Amino acid sequence: MPHLDLDLDVVSLTAALCDIPSVSRDEDAVATAIEDALATLTHLTVTRHGNTVVARTELGRATRVVLAGHIDTVPLTEPPNLPTTRTTRTTVEPAELVGRGTVDMKGGVAVQLRLARQVTDPHVDLTYVFYEGEEIDGEFNGLAHLAADHPDLIAGDFAVLLEPTNGSIEGGCKGTLRADIALLGLAAHSARPWNGHNAIHDAAVVLDRLVAHQAQTVTVDGLEYHEALQAVGISGGIAGNVIPDRCVVTVNYRYAPDKSGADAVAYVRGVFDGFDVQVQDNAPGARPGLDLPAAKAFVEALGVPVGPKEGWTDVARFSALGVPAVNFGPGDPNRAHADDERAPLQQFVDAERAMLRWLA
Amino acid sequence: MPHLDLDLDVVSLTAALCDIPSVSRDEDAVATAIEDALATLTHLTVTRHGNTVVARTELGRATRVVLAGHIDTVPLTEPPNLPTTRTTRTTVEPAELVGRGTVDMKGGVAVQLRLARQVTDPHVDLTYVFYEGEEIDGEFNGLAHLAADHPDLIAGDFAVLLEPTNGSIEGGCKGTLRADIALLGLAAHSARPWNGHNAIHDAAVVLDRLVAHQAQTVTVDGLEYHEALQAVGISGGIAGNVIPDRCVVTVNYRYAPDKSGADAVAYVRGVFDGFDVQVQDNAPGARPGLDLPAAKAFVEALGVPVGPKEGWTDVARFSALGVPAVNFGPGDPNRAHADDERAPLQQFVDAERAMLRWLA
Repeated sequence: MPHLDLDLDVVSLTAALCDIPSVSRDEDAVATAIEDALATLTHLTVTRHGNTVVARTELGRATRVVLAGHIDTVPLTEPPNLPTTRTTRTTVEPAELVGRGTVDMKGGVAVQLRLARQVTDPHVDLTYVFYEGEEIDGEFNGLAHLAADHPDLIAGDFAVLLEPTNGSIEGGCKGTLRADIALLGLAAHSARPWNGHNAIHDAAVVLDRLVAHQAQTVTVDGLEYHEALQAVGISGGIAGNVIPDRCVVTVNYRYAPDKSGADAVAYVRGVFDGFDVQVQDNAPGARPGLDLPAAKAFVEALGVPVGPKEGWTDVARFSALGVPAVNFGPGDPNRAHADDERAPLQQFVDAERAMLRWLA
Repeated sequence: MPHLDLDLDVVSLTAALCDIPSVSRDEDAVATAIEDALATLTHLTVTRHGNTVVARTELGRATRVVLAGHIDTVPLTEPPNLPTTRTTRTTVEPAELVGRGTVDMKGGVAVQLRLARQVTDPHVDLTYVFYEGEEIDGEFNGLAHLAADHPDLIAGDFAVLLEPTNGSIEGGCKGTLRADIALLGLAAHSARPWNGHNAIHDAAVVLDRLVAHQAQTVTVDGLEYHEALQAVGISGGIAGNVIPDRCVVTVNYRYAPDKSGADAVAYVRGVFDGFDVQVQDNAPGARPGLDLPAAKAFVEALGVPVGPKEGWTDVARFSALGVPAVNFGPGDPNRAHADDERAPLQQFVDAERAMLRWLA
């Protein structure tokens, strides 16, 4: 079985974690390695649920902070972009760690493990969550499983999700709603369209409204969130000689975290008033909560730039449990999932140091 | 092997033809039955090419008329809509023959066979063509194969295609052009659309032009053809969280037979000026040619209503060979391919009588 040495420096530990491949649904080896490594730390109580591992201090502190990261990755490239390699610094590029998981998000996991190893007597109680199934359908999400089955294990006053943020703090996240707008016509032979009604032509108005739509920028707890309403899919037509009787436009609304899920539904229905809007999925965002004392202490201790998180992340799962949460981790999110996924070595070191400034 | 008795009345012969199933690519049995029945008629020279059968008089007449029909059908329903059944007349419905092929187009084939049996000394030379593979991709079309390999066998001064026209004469046919209009954008995460460019949104202008387009009505050789320009397909989007970088609108232009294929391309490019228009297929129509003496004689002899053919049919294949052609046959084309395909018995009888008025 692979073994993890938590006394390694954070870069080497990131490489070791990456070199245990853990594509979604195949996290057993890395989960076991993490569980075994944590089991040697007597200040932590370790429990496992599927391939999700939770380690907690139980010091009776007034505040509990949750540090969470997923241990799965998207699939490897062909040929595989593992094991990891290191580049040397050039005049234009820093030294980097290259390979699947270096950005999303074995670096964050390595920081968690290094903190677990070093922070034995923190001023707050700490919960470390290493969870499976983040990169695939929500039904497999280990954090969602904990929230449903063992919410006590992830309860806390403040949470940090160590997803890549390029070293800055990204607060909260936008919500995301997907809806289908179905246009219904009447099929006919395309040589005699006057016998039917073209559903694709009816989609013109829907697209016109999308093009004309002015997305809002909303300030929540001091951070500016840029909303967006965009088509992400359109389909219609069954044959080259048939007037289509159905066309579906799929829209995605990314909304500021001051809106509830119901607010978002009402907004989209308003934009497409008069049309058949069917909501397919809807996940509200998370307020950054940067006005809360625990969050303020975190921001002050780290001393790094603070901005909004535009994409939806699992911080919203904490938010839904009443736990304010932020994103902070090494790696540029634009490099996540890329074939040449890579991150500067210095970012791993800086992230570990920043977290130690806060917790130690 | 199934046997066809050409002395049957036209309704019974239609039923017998339908009851030899001949879904496209499976026409051997019916082709053999037709070939065997025609071989007994000494006034005809019979040749076979694949599952296409040609029978010709060789009387040295000044004029040659081609009578053509396809012998394949679209697939049966489940449970099968064969063997045929007959309904009895009610106060609101005539007696009908019900089942696959009764409309498209075993009735027309039965009329051809009845004429072949009865018209032994016509005032024109006659060519009967019974061809395979009309209901599927053009590469399988038996008439196209003859046009390419043995154009002499289908040469003539005038042609009648016995496709269903509900008992009227439909002259010529419209052309049909299909083109893809591709919109290209730049992919981005849908939470940060400002990093990309939405190709589906760009399709709004294309759809707007389609909606605004005023289709022309064009009179050719005295018949009014109604043009049409319609979307028959649209697709875009690869995932619910991605700004799509590609959207394709497929349009179908049905154009009057006074336009060449090149005219049609120029027209569509004009409507979508500024866009990337890729022509996928283009089949010019056929002029009705009703001003030609052979056609005039046909129209006068039949004494039935005359109109334009809106859909593209194989008359265009004759037209391309320089043979003017019309459509005339029993059955309502709106019933073609229907699960409850059916035609009034009287239409088969009337069609046979009308053709006999002309040829006998």
